[in-house]
Amino acid sequence: MNAPCPDQRGPLLGVCYYPEQWPEGVWPADAARMVALGLTRVRIGEFAWSAIEPEPGRFDWGWLDRAIAVLGGAGLQVIMSTPTAAPPRWLVDRYPDILPVGADGHVRKFGARRHYCFSSTRYRQEAARIATEVARRYGRNDHVVAWQIDNEYGDHDTIHSYSPAAQAAFRDWLAARYGTIGALNAAWGTSFWSMRYNGFDQIELPNQLVEEPSPTHLMDYLRFSSDQVVAFNRAQTEILRAHSPGRDITHNGMNQNTDYDHRALAADLDVMSWDAYPLGNLIHGRLPEADKARLLRTGDPDQPGFNNDLYRGVGRGRMWIMEQQPGPVNWAAQNQAPADGMVRLWTWAAYAHGCEMVAYFRWRQAPFAQEQYHTGMLLPDGTPDQAHDEVARVAAERALLPPLPPRGRAQVALVLDYPSRFALAVLPQAANFRPGHHALDWYAALRRLGVDLDIIGPGDDLAGYRLIVAPDLVIMPEDFVTRLAASGAKALFGPRSGSKTGDMHIPANLPPGPLQRLIDVKVLRSESLPDWHEERVLLGNRTLTARRWRETVTTGADVLATFAGDYRAGAPALVGNDRVRYLATLPAPEGLRAIMAGTLDWAGVAALPDLGDLRITRRGGLCFAFNFGPAPADAPAPEGARFLIGSRRIDSADLAIWQEAD
Amino acid sequence: MNAPCPDQRGPLLGVCYYPEQWPEGVWPADAARMVALGLTRVRIGEFAWSAIEPEPGRFDWGWLDRAIAVLGGAGLQVIMSTPTAAPPRWLVDRYPDILPVGADGHVRKFGARRHYCFSSTRYRQEAARIATEVARRYGRNDHVVAWQIDNEYGDHDTIHSYSPAAQAAFRDWLAARYGTIGALNAAWGTSFWSMRYNGFDQIELPNQLVEEPSPTHLMDYLRFSSDQVVAFNRAQTEILRAHSPGRDITHNGMNQNTDYDHRALAADLDVMSWDAYPLGNLIHGRLPEADKARLLRTGDPDQPGFNNDLYRGVGRGRMWIMEQQPGPVNWAAQNQAPADGMVRLWTWAAYAHGCEMVAYFRWRQAPFAQEQYHTGMLLPDGTPDQAHDEVARVAAERALLPPLPPRGRAQVALVLDYPSRFALAVLPQAANFRPGHHALDWYAALRRLGVDLDIIGPGDDLAGYRLIVAPDLVIMPEDFVTRLAASGAKALFGPRSGSKTGDMHIPANLPPGPLQRLIDVKVLRSESLPDWHEERVLLGNRTLTARRWRETVTTGADVLATFAGDYRAGAPALVGNDRVRYLATLPAPEGLRAIMAGTLDWAGVAALPDLGDLRITRRGGLCFAFNFGPAPADAPAPEGARFLIGSRRIDSADLAIWQEAD
Amino acid sequence: MNAPCPDQRGPLLGVCYYPEQWPEGVWPADAARMVALGLTRVRIGEFAWSAIEPEPGRFDWGWLDRAIAVLGGAGLQVIMSTPTAAPPRWLVDRYPDILPVGADGHVRKFGARRHYCFSSTRYRQEAARIATEVARRYGRNDHVVAWQIDNEYGDHDTIHSYSPAAQAAFRDWLAARYGTIGALNAAWGTSFWSMRYNGFDQIELPNQLVEEPSPTHLMDYLRFSSDQVVAFNRAQTEILRAHSPGRDITHNGMNQNTDYDHRALAADLDVMSWDAYPLGNLIHGRLPEADKARLLRTGDPDQPGFNNDLYRGVGRGRMWIMEQQPGPVNWAAQNQAPADGMVRLWTWAAYAHGCEMVAYFRWRQAPFAQEQYHTGMLLPDGTPDQAHDEVARVAAERALLPPLPPRGRAQVALVLDYPSRFALAVLPQAANFRPGHHALDWYAALRRLGVDLDIIGPGDDLAGYRLIVAPDLVIMPEDFVTRLAASGAKALFGPRSGSKTGDMHIPANLPPGPLQRLIDVKVLRSESLPDWHEERVLLGNRTLTARRWRETVTTGADVLATFAGDYRAGAPALVGNDRVRYLATLPAPEGLRAIMAGTLDWAGVAALPDLGDLRITRRGGLCFAFNFGPAPADAPAPEGARFLIGSRRIDSADLAIWQEAD
Repeated sequence: MNAPCPDQRGPLLGVCYYPEQWPEGVWPADAARMVALGLTRVRIGEFAWSAIEPEPGRFDWGWLDRAIAVLGGAGLQVIMSTPTAAPPRWLVDRYPDILPVGADGHVRKFGARRHYCFSSTRYRQEAARIATEVARRYGRNDHVVAWQIDNEYGDHDTIHSYSPAAQAAFRDWLAARYGTIGALNAAWGTSFWSMRYNGFDQIELPNQLVEEPSPTHLMDYLRFSSDQVVAFNRAQTEILRAHSPGRDITHNGMNQNTDYDHRALAADLDVMSWDAYPLGNLIHGRLPEADKARLLRTGDPDQPGFNNDLYRGVGRGRMWIMEQQPGPVNWAAQNQAPADGMVRLWTWAAYAHGCEMVAYFRWRQAPFAQEQYHTGMLLPDGTPDQAHDEVARVAAERALLPPLPPRGRAQVALVLDYPSRFALAVLPQAANFRPGHHALDWYAALRRLGVDLDIIGPGDDLAGYRLIVAPDLVIMPEDFVTRLAASGAKALFGPRSGSKTGDMHIPANLPPGPLQRLIDVKVLRSESLPDWHEERVLLGNRTLTARRWRETVTTGADVLATFAGDYRAGAPALVGNDRVRYLATLPAPEGLRAIMAGTLDWAGVAALPDLGDLRITRRGGLCFAFNFGPAPADAPAPEGARFLIGSRRIDSADLAIWQEAD
Repeated sequence: MNAPCPDQRGPLLGVCYYPEQWPEGVWPADAARMVALGLTRVRIGEFAWSAIEPEPGRFDWGWLDRAIAVLGGAGLQVIMSTPTAAPPRWLVDRYPDILPVGADGHVRKFGARRHYCFSSTRYRQEAARIATEVARRYGRNDHVVAWQIDNEYGDHDTIHSYSPAAQAAFRDWLAARYGTIGALNAAWGTSFWSMRYNGFDQIELPNQLVEEPSPTHLMDYLRFSSDQVVAFNRAQTEILRAHSPGRDITHNGMNQNTDYDHRALAADLDVMSWDAYPLGNLIHGRLPEADKARLLRTGDPDQPGFNNDLYRGVGRGRMWIMEQQPGPVNWAAQNQAPADGMVRLWTWAAYAHGCEMVAYFRWRQAPFAQEQYHTGMLLPDGTPDQAHDEVARVAAERALLPPLPPRGRAQVALVLDYPSRFALAVLPQAANFRPGHHALDWYAALRRLGVDLDIIGPGDDLAGYRLIVAPDLVIMPEDFVTRLAASGAKALFGPRSGSKTGDMHIPANLPPGPLQRLIDVKVLRSESLPDWHEERVLLGNRTLTARRWRETVTTGADVLATFAGDYRAGAPALVGNDRVRYLATLPAPEGLRAIMAGTLDWAGVAALPDLGDLRITRRGGLCFAFNFGPAPADAPAPEGARFLIGSRRIDSADLAIWQEAD
Repeated sequence: MNAPCPDQRGPLLGVCYYPEQWPEGVWPADAARMVALGLTRVRIGEFAWSAIEPEPGRFDWGWLDRAIAVLGGAGLQVIMSTPTAAPPRWLVDRYPDILPVGADGHVRKFGARRHYCFSSTRYRQEAARIATEVARRYGRNDHVVAWQIDNEYGDHDTIHSYSPAAQAAFRDWLAARYGTIGALNAAWGTSFWSMRYNGFDQIELPNQLVEEPSPTHLMDYLRFSSDQVVAFNRAQTEILRAHSPGRDITHNGMNQNTDYDHRALAADLDVMSWDAYPLGNLIHGRLPEADKARLLRTGDPDQPGFNNDLYRGVGRGRMWIMEQQPGPVNWAAQNQAPADGMVRLWTWAAYAHGCEMVAYFRWRQAPFAQEQYHTGMLLPDGTPDQAHDEVARVAAERALLPPLPPRGRAQVALVLDYPSRFALAVLPQAANFRPGHHALDWYAALRRLGVDLDIIGPGDDLAGYRLIVAPDLVIMPEDFVTRLAASGAKALFGPRSGSKTGDMHIPANLPPGPLQRLIDVKVLRSESLPDWHEERVLLGNRTLTARRWRETVTTGADVLATFAGDYRAGAPALVGNDRVRYLATLPAPEGLRAIMAGTLDWAGVAALPDLGDLRITRRGGLCFAFNFGPAPADAPAPEGARFLIGSRRIDSADLAIWQEAD
């Protein structure tokens, strides 16, 4: 592992570049322009396999040697990639069984990318072979400072394959997990519906069934698939560590993707990266249409922050943005442009959240192939586009800031647990239950009150937090409860917390299972509710609305809010004692904000009045404010605050940075 | 066949129980608690095959012997099941071709239930083998009073298989039906689009075509598939009659399922059962969103009644509810809770509609496997849940009633014909044509006017009815018309009545085909209409709205209502003579109620003013009223009525029972 | 090629007839009734293969000989068809590989029609064989005046097959197009995502990939598929020309279908036909729901005109309607009836747009098989239906008109380019981007201003046009730009014009590519926008709304309209010089009409005030007005105009024809 990044005055700036896609003659000018712009890093090579090895065993290193020499010679640090995200056509011809199989039982064909099955032992060998070749050649190259392994695991639902190789590997995985078929039968509950197995070799993958499989069957398949990704990635980390000592190793995750356990993956990495495309995520995201319309070209104010905080935690404090949206992209249902200023804003916001580097995807828009509507820093003809000029401004503005250490621990932590998300994918219990939206709602409620957060896993250190909020910790480890009790933190849990054991059973003492050690509450009934129905909740003298989920609980704790309306009026909606609160429904944003305000006050965490579309983030004595709204807004800075960038009045798509009184 | 159930003071009460899912040690306490609650019957065994025969030919009867002994010993009557709804894994390994094939051409895999093809001769043999084994062992057991064959035919679209076995059986079925290929060519109209066949062995199943198949091709496939279910079921009835004399044999149907002909199935049974899950059916059902929101936790007031009346008719007067929803379930798009009181209400409503037994699904909520969000009478930890206490109340209330015979014949019958429903599935002529909704609308219109109904088939005895309504008798048997003419009944027919021959042709004399013997009306044109368009109908001085379907008719009969608006204003919408009325459109609920009120008056059937969300049912001198609405309502009882249960003012989710003046 | 049709006093009238579906005994009476009605042409035979050749090599010509004799003997001219749209069952049994394969990888089965793969060499042989047999037998028959080849290429997505035969043919097609694999790699941009090919035999069809294929890969597949249709059709034209000299050869296209290049197809034909089903196209069409409701039974006023103008252009001035909707049909999501009068209206409208013949589909409604809800001129029992009487009226009205030559050239041409439509199908860049709707919007905006249009391809002669509008000429040929410059025409281009090269790359000089030779404008950015967002555009002192697409352009030309609102306010929305205008967005109808009004004025084309639901068309001194709206409207005829049919006040679904002052 490498040492964390030293103190910085702003994010390192980088860019994604594809020398194999451009005539060699333009490389030197490109490199020079990058350096002139203030970029210091360049990622290359993640889709270069067929250019490196155009035929089996025949390597063409020359172009890549020269590309690295040109870039490095210009002063750029190279982030080299292993090219395993896109095996060449000839490899598919040789070994057709490396292709993944979809849930529909059909082979997913060559012609795009990510066309491999993680369970293919042949592909594991080939991936190791090409990674070794690349690592040997460039591992000790002076210009190479870091490695990206593969690219965006999980893009286009590529974690889950239903191939014969996956079936064989799944059986082995189950045998290792359970030891005996009897243990599996007990865990899966095969006495239900006569599903009993006599041996592991009878087990199939959970696709194309008449009806849904045992949730434990499906849960194990999700866990298995996640483990396959982690193992695939680990093999490459070992190769890189052997051949390229001292370089950071990373992988680039995607917006709140929970198809595999990113923490397990990141345990083998030095730094975690993510790819930031806020506007497509607005289109496909959680907000109601009126909010989407207001924020069309600025995006959900909390999507970037959530991911920055999530991946910073996953990376144990070290986080990069490997691909930052520079303008309109090509893959969403609609692809609007960022408002002018947003590339700069997102860049500074990433830094405020502890990001060490922001790299833009991509240098020059490609005039051919799949992503030709994906903009770059330059237009296809080399003209500077929006991102070019905004990044130049960021590069210049860095001089105005003092150096800052990695962002420190927040007072509030939000728990996001990958196995719990698997569990909700397995048993959503409603067509409209979207955990990613609900967790982001919780995050947003706190952020609109000016609070900084860490996003942690239940296994992470809890020391120092005043408040821990867990919107959906479905599978609650006993150890987490123990450590929570030992910490000084207060905690707020959402509905469905502790509602499943690790085997996907209802806990013997009913939900919230182990949490009952800390609070006297028991969930007797869970309801999922249609979007056209609203529940009402009385919180003090306020009436809130809630949606989608309602639990009936009994409690010996204090009842802090109650349900109103026709059904079981007066039943507890929010209960608590001096350490733990449990929320038995999903309040709509305004109500959730009211509950969070009370919870912050209870936990002794300072909060601001509702910030609307403004977001505030603090880092080591600096305070950053970002205006995602359409109208100018005033920074909630103390009188006499010293503004280093911007001023109190912040325009739409603009920002301000000031020194808090230290 | 068995004698009908003796007079009762209320429904027999039962429960579904799974000894194979619980430690043997808890059985005695469970049985004792059931008895204490007032339950007298327990259904077991329908998913127990792999527990009974864990390996090919090795039987483990011990546990089941003991379970029956424990339950019976406690005083419970056992409804034993044949376990053919879920063949064991080892059987699938031995004979993979027992698996069904979906319309997409893919085998539907093991791992849930109902994974068999009705056309598999191998599976027919195996089903007979296990049924024989179970029947031999328990057929004369004193505790066993009845049998359920298999479970919920048709769940998850399992009537229709596209396997090689189905194709072979379909060819045989067609050869038997048509005799010569020429007859088939004529019936299917293969002169259209050059579809002529030279022999039966050229015929394929009607999936994965370029365009839709001949409607007669598809109709024959639906008939064939239905016949396969009936034959599959009949084989088991024969085994049970041989080995278990004197016991009732039943099968449990599902909410208004029309994938197979339930009357043909029930002809081999002693009593018909159905599984009652009103709240999921509300979510997926016919009502507009505002009504769904108002009735969220009480359900469509007519869904239970419709099914009670339907299955009572299918069972020739004998009907059970084998599975009654006890609380929230797990399978709907959303799964809300029943309002407190509804389990009791549904139970009494079933009794009012002639149900002999209500069994609850299930005793204790399972903390594992697919249905762990499906509640039971007890929580997973054994705590009583809603249904437990409400059933106890029902058990006690029975003493307040006099014994009653099976519910007698109503004055009004609604015709539901399975082949006609196949015909509408084959040729809906609109994406928004939903026969199940339309028939329920007709039923509801009559029920809101306080009318009791029977639901009959066109082959049933018509004697004694004052009014027969047929919302969608598309294929109208000549014999039905003859018997209708001979009966004293007046009749109201809906659009599309008589619009197809048995071969799925337009009748030579145009629709309504044979009905023209009773009324001078001819349909010249049929239109299907989008949901965003409304037709207007003038009925006397009232303007009604109609939707989705409009016919242009000529008639020599009286014109009772006309279309208004731009298109063919003044054209007949409702026509009639002294015996038969024909309605040429689908009025919206309010208008349909107006038409039904006039029709009842014409037929001499007494009606009440609109009951709103209240429903009234009479049985042998007792009158039952059920309040499905959110507000209290007054029972329309005569002054001086003697209330046996409840009183004139009926709360939401509550009921009243009074003695009418005999 | 044949000479164009002589001057006419109205459309020739015809009907589609299926002697093979009716008893021979009714043919003579049918023929006599057709003649009595004023029909002179009858199309037969397009689905008769299995009746002609019921077994391999055994021909049954007798019935067809007699049918032609009966029809011809009654005075009808026969349009004979080759029956290749529906190969017989026995042919499928012999050669199963003639069946097409869907994008899901599954064979599309026999049982309907169009069940063949255009790339099957076996089917090409068999189609040539049966076409030769039919052509030999009837090619010189005196009653046969024309031929239809096959039927509705592309119905039910049958252009695109994913069979092994298609894969093999695609590889050959690519080898012929590119010569070397290196040229293909360059065109497809396979340096992106490591997609490089080593040889043509590695290339697969672009279905079932993990993610979308290279757009050039997909574009080539669409071009290839189109070419296969053209080649398939050409083979039959050669056979017919050899055996049936002097007869017109045609094929019947479908509503604005752009799955294959109709101009390339029509180059081998004498006359182009299309099948007119306006009401189903209303249901599935472009209009907002309120407009659809208003026009429910009259249809989109511009759908018939657009297709008439399109296919007239495709047919180089000669166009027929081979199938005209006579009443409700069977295939749309809903199937409403045409208002009384609409069959007559559509018939006269076709004539006004230059149509030589209107044939109705079909003579008598079939009481069996797939289309039994599709009405005809007669009901199944022979009773005349709506179309019968309206056609009789048209036949009589023809005497009121003078003979007219083929419709002459309009002053305004709209460019519709098939390869450009392929390009937009390949890279829509938005889920809500529907080129067919947008082009129809442009057409409608001009038609509501009373303008007549031609619809042309970019290769067509441009002489004589005052204005050329091109809503979506994505791939702009250099030659077109040259000829446009040489013509005297002014031109208006829509967004995305010139945005792709023939290889589906962004042009080196950025969009609009070659158009920059005529106007100084460059597109720097394209945005696709969700339906819930509106852009505002300032045009003079009017504020318009625009939707779905917005471009950022730089220009040296005049800025004629600008964007308003938050994003880049003041940016050009419409720019122009004295010859060319470029529109950078998609205005909503009202705004588009304002822009078109200004453009017409600029181009010196006379326009009328907004006609609402009225449509005006001129042909050789006659002026036709058609009222598609629900209310009467006044014809904008000059005072003293001589009305030949109708009068100034035109009822809903009615028309007027007057002599303009010549």
